Amino acid sequence: MSEAVLMIDPETATADPFFGELVRQMRAVDTYGVLDTLDNAEILDPFILTKERRREIPVIGDPDDTTLARVKGYYNALAVMIEQHVGLMATPIINLTHEGFGRALISVGKLIVIDRSLRDVHRFGFPSPAKMRDEAGAQVARAVALVAEHPTVARL
Amino acid sequence: MSEAVLMIDPETATADPFFGELVRQMRAVDTYGVLDTLDNAEILDPFILTKERRREIPVIGDPDDTTLARVKGYYNALAVMIEQHVGLMATPIINLTHEGFGRALISVGKLIVIDRSLRDVHRFGFPSPAKMRDEAGAQVARAVALVAEHPTVARL
Repeated sequence: MSEAVLMIDPETATADPFFGELVRQMRAVDTYGVLDTLDNAEILDPFILTKERRREIPVIGDPDDTTLARVKGYYNALAVMIEQHVGLMATPIINLTHEGFGRALISVGKLIVIDRSLRDVHRFGFPSPAKMRDEAGAQVARAVALVAEHPTVARL
Repeated sequence: MSEAVLMIDPETATADPFFGELVRQMRAVDTYGVLDTLDNAEILDPFILTKERRREIPVIGDPDDTTLARVKGYYNALAVMIEQHVGLMATPIINLTHEGFGRALISVGKLIVIDRSLRDVHRFGFPSPAKMRDEAGAQVARAVALVAEHPTVARL
C-alpha cells in the first residue's frame, strides 16, 4: 500500500458489519498471507474506485488474481450476510472468462437469490464506501425478500 | 478417431433426440472445425467410458479442453431438452477448477433445476450409450418436475 490517502476510514472499516465480513472473507482466501500486515481499511481500499482511480485503469484488460479475489470476497460476504438473515445456507458461484466477463450467482436451496452479469471485472469497484455499503445492503435485502416470498424453494 | 470400434451405433447417434442435440451442441462450440470431418457416432464415442477405457485414464489428472467441451456440451444439451419441455429458457453454468472439481447448474428463471457436484472431470463419461441416455433422461425429467412444482420461481 502506498502512502496515498485511504478511501475508507479505519473506524467504518471495522465497525460496519458488511465491511467487517468482507475483510474476514478476504483474509480467509489469502493463502500466502500477503494481507497479514494490512489493516482493515487498507484491505478495503482497493474496492473503492473513485472517478480518478477508474480513469487510471485501461478500459479493456484482463482481471488479475488480486481483482478476482476481491470479486469472490465481495460475493462471499454477501452470502454470509444473507445466511445471517435467513438462517439457511447461501452458496456463491462465480463464473468468469479470462477476459473478465461472466456471472455471479448466490443460491439458497434451489432458489437463486442473486444473479448478476459481470463484465469488465478488471474495473470491479465502487465509487465510495457509502455507495458500496448501500449497494451490498440493497442486494442482501432483495435476496432476503426473495427467500421470504419463496420459502419452499429456498429449503429444497 | 482410430479404427477402433465405436461404442455407439450411427443410427442411435442420429435418431435419438438427446444424442442429436448433444452433437449439435458439440458442433456449435467447435470454433476451429476439428469435428467437421467426424460423423455423429464419432463425436459421441468419447462420451462412452467402458470399464476398459476408464482403466486407461489416470485416476488423478487435469481435464483438457476437449474434455471440458464435452462436459459443457452435455449440460448445454440438457438445458435445451429442458427448454423444449417447459417452454422457458434454461441456462447452464459450469464452474470448474483447473483440477476438474466444481459444480454444474442449470437454472430456469430463479429456480435451480439441476445442481451437480463435479469431480474427476478428466474421467467424465458414461458406461454405455443406453446408460447415458437414461441418466440424461432422468435429469431432464427431474428438472421438468421441479418447474411444474414451482412455476412462479421458474418464471421470475
